[in-house]
Amino acid sequence: MKFVFKTQVRVRYVEVDQSGFVYNGNYATYYEVGRTEALRQMGHTYKEMEDSGIVMPLINQYSRFYKPAIYDDLLTIVTTIPEVPKVKIRFEYEVFNEKGEKLNEGSNELAFLNKERQRTQRAPEWFVNLFVEYAKKQG
Amino acid sequence: MKFVFKTQVRVRYVEVDQSGFVYNGNYATYYEVGRTEALRQMGHTYKEMEDSGIVMPLINQYSRFYKPAIYDDLLTIVTTIPEVPKVKIRFEYEVFNEKGEKLNEGSNELAFLNKERQRTQRAPEWFVNLFVEYAKKQG
Amino acid sequence: MKFVFKTQVRVRYVEVDQSGFVYNGNYATYYEVGRTEALRQMGHTYKEMEDSGIVMPLINQYSRFYKPAIYDDLLTIVTTIPEVPKVKIRFEYEVFNEKGEKLNEGSNELAFLNKERQRTQRAPEWFVNLFVEYAKKQG
Amino acid sequence: MKFVFKTQVRVRYVEVDQSGFVYNGNYATYYEVGRTEALRQMGHTYKEMEDSGIVMPLINQYSRFYKPAIYDDLLTIVTTIPEVPKVKIRFEYEVFNEKGEKLNEGSNELAFLNKERQRTQRAPEWFVNLFVEYAKKQG
Repeated sequence: MKFVFKTQVRVRYVEVDQSGFVYNGNYATYYEVGRTEALRQMGHTYKEMEDSGIVMPLINQYSRFYKPAIYDDLLTIVTTIPEVPKVKIRFEYEVFNEKGEKLNEGSNELAFLNKERQRTQRAPEWFVNLFVEYAKKQG
Repeated sequence: MKFVFKTQVRVRYVEVDQSGFVYNGNYATYYEVGRTEALRQMGHTYKEMEDSGIVMPLINQYSRFYKPAIYDDLLTIVTTIPEVPKVKIRFEYEVFNEKGEKLNEGSNELAFLNKERQRTQRAPEWFVNLFVEYAKKQG
Repeated sequence: MKFVFKTQVRVRYVEVDQSGFVYNGNYATYYEVGRTEALRQMGHTYKEMEDSGIVMPLINQYSRFYKPAIYDDLLTIVTTIPEVPKVKIRFEYEVFNEKGEKLNEGSNELAFLNKERQRTQRAPEWFVNLFVEYAKKQG
Repeated sequence: MKFVFKTQVRVRYVEVDQSGFVYNGNYATYYEVGRTEALRQMGHTYKEMEDSGIVMPLINQYSRFYKPAIYDDLLTIVTTIPEVPKVKIRFEYEVFNEKGEKLNEGSNELAFLNKERQRTQRAPEWFVNLFVEYAKKQG
């Protein structure tokens, strides 16, 4: 089962460079908003994850740019978690403008780092259960 | 006695917005670089300050914009500490381009926050001494 | 007559530095969102302003920091335009967290720059009228 | 023939998030600095490219994170252009800290966009010649 979530961001002036297009590095931020709001929609916050002593550093990130996003665009970020996380979690992203044009797609994988021990670990059990519960609710 | 330091930054593409000018919020970063390199030139790093358990949050910041900085400009940041810090430290900044035009000036004041106790305190003694020593060396 | 507007932003992970507090330079972005949404609530967009050939560079900016904003805070930005713009426009900002604590306040003044002529000018007539019309509607 | 360039950046406070590590999106900026300085070392600036009417939007970007960069690290960015550009240009990046540890590697491909016509084109002839000349000088 796939877990699919949607959220929106308005392109800020600061995010657009002198080419008139959103600076490429800002897609990392849009992806961050995408996965943060995905977790919130599952009834959880990434803040709670960190409060429990686990940070989630990136392992890798891929991005493909189709069309530019421009200032004041209201973007829709579709975030997909293709499977229940184990030792890492994978997120896939698609970014659309208001015309429904796909501007960008990307993916990344994040680890679970025990902040105190500075060691990676498996996804916490309560986090895995969140997916199981969410899947049940979706039927 | 005034403490005056110089450092340079090259304007990055990401820092310029679609007006073709450096986005105003990035001057906060240039000021950060200015005061970081000022401390380094005094034989100290801000990293050491934080490692000793003290962070330095901003109390206020003022900025005045004269002319725009543009992409790839090599900026000179002149950072002045007008007096030895006590309960807070004041920094003053002037930003020039390669033609010597003054583009921006600003100032801010920072407190000394004991991270563990989450309380502000006076400037640490070793930090105050740094100024005294530096003043001696300058004659 | 004062013109007062409200909007909200969620603090992003990218906006928080290692002190655990929002990096000071990001308030410039929150102010940007505040004034952008203020104009939108008046029935206009800053994008339309730029499309008409006028950019609005900052003349000055002041910021005062009371308490830190932290990750995932839902901030309310109250943006006030204290008077109808003439040769420049003044914005005042207050930033509150969900507990209603005032975290920050600031102000800035922006000019009207004719992009093609690279000269400042008075506020365009249609823009001034926007305020007059808005004031009428508010009674 | 491969074209290899080195440059250094100091990690800024603004670039580090509350995990204590450089925020992932800032590697896009480090890559930008890497390729900008690569071009400068070849006797050219990206600014001249844009002044000639050509912007270079990203087509894709890949990044792999090995170890975190931390505040005040002096990073070395090794930028490799694996072949003379034709319809696009490929850059490869490796980021090292002062201990010589590889923290990150990545790559991206950029197109050549004629700004006025809003159409992509082949690499300009003078730009291709730059590589030919540079290769000669290197022997």
